[in-house]
This record gives sequence, C-alpha cells and structure tokens, in this order.
Amino acid sequence: MSLKTSTSTKALEVCFSPALIHLHDVSNAVVVVIDVLRATSSICVALNNGVKSIVPVASIEESKSYKEKGFLVGAERDGEMIEGYDLGNSPFSYLDPRVKGRDIALSTTNGTQAIAAAKGAKQLVVGSFLNLDCLCDWLIAQDKNVLLLCSGWKDSFNLEDTLFAGAVAEKIVDHFELNKMRDAVIAAMHLYSLAKNDMNAFLENSSHRKRLERLQIDKDIEYCLTLNQAPVIPVMVNGALVKLTL
Amino acid sequence: MSLKTSTSTKALEVCFSPALIHLHDVSNAVVVVIDVLRATSSICVALNNGVKSIVPVASIEESKSYKEKGFLVGAERDGEMIEGYDLGNSPFSYLDPRVKGRDIALSTTNGTQAIAAAKGAKQLVVGSFLNLDCLCDWLIAQDKNVLLLCSGWKDSFNLEDTLFAGAVAEKIVDHFELNKMRDAVIAAMHLYSLAKNDMNAFLENSSHRKRLERLQIDKDIEYCLTLNQAPVIPVMVNGALVKLTL
Repeated sequence: MSLKTSTSTKALEVCFSPALIHLHDVSNAVVVVIDVLRATSSICVALNNGVKSIVPVASIEESKSYKEKGFLVGAERDGEMIEGYDLGNSPFSYLDPRVKGRDIALSTTNGTQAIAAAKGAKQLVVGSFLNLDCLCDWLIAQDKNVLLLCSGWKDSFNLEDTLFAGAVAEKIVDHFELNKMRDAVIAAMHLYSLAKNDMNAFLENSSHRKRLERLQIDKDIEYCLTLNQAPVIPVMVNGALVKLTL
Repeated sequence: MSLKTSTSTKALEVCFSPALIHLHDVSNAVVVVIDVLRATSSICVALNNGVKSIVPVASIEESKSYKEKGFLVGAERDGEMIEGYDLGNSPFSYLDPRVKGRDIALSTTNGTQAIAAAKGAKQLVVGSFLNLDCLCDWLIAQDKNVLLLCSGWKDSFNLEDTLFAGAVAEKIVDHFELNKMRDAVIAAMHLYSLAKNDMNAFLENSSHRKRLERLQIDKDIEYCLTLNQAPVIPVMVNGALVKLTL
C-alpha cells in the first residue's frame, strides 16, 4: 500500500469503537457512522426507498413513545427483531412499499448507539457499502475533516465495519492528510485490500457471522456487502436522518 | 488465513486500547501487555540483562520518590527522555552493565499506563518481539485465558503493537478458542501476515515512526522488531516486574 503525500490539511481518521470517540474532535469533523451489518445498510435502503425520516433512538423503551406519534418502529437486539415492532434490522424489510413516505424510529444493538456517541459532530452522515461511491464523492467535495466511526459490537472492534472504513479510505485518502491517528486508517485499508475481492469469504470466521448463524441472515449479509445499491446520503438534521439533497 | 476448530475452552482475545479493557474479563486471564516501541521491549532487555526488578509507575512525579529509595529511574514522555532521570526508553540503555542487579522505576507514555489498566489481571506478563517465542511457549503451557493488550498511543490504536498481537496469535491460536471478541484477533493476524516479511517497511508510514522521526531512533526500532533477543518473561509480582523462573 502506498500513501501519496497529500497537500490537504483536512484530516481523515478512523475510530474502531464508540468507546474511543473521545480521542477524536468530532465537533470539527464530518462523522460517518458505520454499522454495515445491518443498521446503516438498512438506513440507506430505507431512505433510498422513499422513507421520509429515521429517528435513531438508543433505547427500546424510547422507541415505543414514537409508535404513539404515528411512527413505524424498528428495533433489534442481538440480531433479532423485537416482538410488537413493525420492522427489524433486515435491509429487505425497508424495501417494502408500505414504508414510503413514513417516519421510522429505529433502535438497534450497535448502530444507533454509535449515532448517539457521535452526536456532537459538525455533521453526521451514515455509510454502508450500499452508498459507498456517492458517499466518497461527497466527502471529497466537502473539504472538511472526516472521521469514520465504526459501531463495532457492543463497543468492541469488528471486522465488517473496519472493512467499510478501509473501502472509504482507499477511495478518498489522497484528498486528506493522515495525522497522529493514522494507524487505524492504514490498518483498515490493509484489511480491505485483503478482503475486497471476496468480502463474504473474508468475513466467514468473523464474530458477527458466527453470532448470527442461527438467524439465517446470509441473504442480508450478502446484500449488505454489495456496492452502491442505495445511492443516498443519510444526514442527521434536527435529530432525524433524512436523505441529503445532492 | 484458516482457523482450525480448537477443542480448547480457553479464550484468546486481543484488546487494541487500554481504554477498551473494560470489555474483557482480566480477572480470569493472563494479560500480556504490549508496547513494542519501546517500553515492553526495554523491559525484556532489562530483565534479560540482570536487572532485578522494574516497578512501573504511572506518573513521573511518582517515579521521583523511588529515586530517593535507591532505585534507578527511567522516564519518557512523547518519546523523549526526561531531564534528571537515569534512563530513557531506549532498549540499548538497558544493556548497560551498570543496570545489573538494580531495581528500576519506569514511567513511559503508554506502556506503563497499559500495565496500570491491566492491574486486575489474574497474571500480568510483558511481551515484545524480543521475547516472542518463549512467551508463546509459556502461554500455551498455562492453559488459561489469554488477553493480548496493546498499549496503543495515548489510548488510540497503533500498528506495531497490533503486529505483535498478531505474531503471538499466529503461534498460539490453535491452542485456544476464539469467542465473540474474535474479530480483533483475526485482524491482528491478517495484519501480521502482511507485515512479517519486512515489518520495518510495513511500519514506514505508521504514526509512531512519523512521530519519532525527529528523535532518530531508527536503530531502536530495528532492534525492537528483531525476534527473541531477550528470551525472558517479565511477570508482575507484588507490583514489580521480575524475570519469571521457567
């Protein structure tokens, strides 16, 4: 892997866990929240499919109050849909025509927690392989510091979010400066370079795959690892994720 | 990379930052503290060279009180030796014959902080490339859970400690079970497999290398990346690191 010497003064950083967010200055950065399996993939699918807004809520209890306000509610814990909720965490459920035009309150194990951790961001957007190219083009055009925040699994490092951070870094790194937090960027890029020809195989032994084997979500995973199926940029505006007008 | 199905019930985990130590049950594990550049390398060199004990102290102020008790004092912050101290953080300074038989109080930017973070460990040992093989043989023989704790740089992920975690994992993984924290182990192993033929070149763009360029410590780095030059296992006993009798 070679790194060009960039003339940019804008920093690109990667954070492997919401529990390390305090090491980064989010107030001066566009933070890309990443929870590839499956929250941020589902969010991209939903907004690409005409969902009006998605309110990330940290607790399942909180999401219940949104149901009373007319929201559809989505929730998942440890990979499983919660009884009584309209939607789980499968991207396919957000392809349903009945979600068009609706507002959704969503609570997931990791993704919505990471969104909460990044709440002080200058701007908060959502990334997944499903919006990779348009997200990268947009990040380059912003000319702002960028922090790629991996949700991980309950604050621990995970492979799939790291691969996505590496995919983004590979596309945009030449437009940014690497600073003292560069090692996470370099590691993510190396891992993505090893994985990119067959990410599904690369992740075969991963923790998430092992954990969710019982749920038979292979189709979800395969879909979440395909590129550019949902070319939208979900952006946080007044506490809700909406589709950025490009 | 293929992972065998192990019949062991002992877990092997990797932690990329002292700030994530709370995700691991250290009370039930042998914790290997890793700060390859340069604290844990220097500790291995010192004990291999006849130093009697090394007391890791978190603050520079604390180490001063040890000087009054007859200890040699070593301290480093941001890579530089502190004025008035006997020793810095270069492994070569611990090869000096005058350190033989002495007790040393050592405070460094990252390594001694990581040791402090792991203080609840069932057993705490120190790892570096300089003691790789004997450490791995010993870890296999213990039949206990193992946590490889990377010191990182001021709580952020770093490459060189990750490479060492990968080197250890490569040697011992078949004797352990990978659990839900497996992704960090897998990532470290992949990165080490990419780096191992020329670690010095792999680390050329790393944060530590860039940060310490001005200090001209290339010889230190080269030495710290050589294998098995100091075949000892530093183990924590009553607050001091001493050479484990094998």
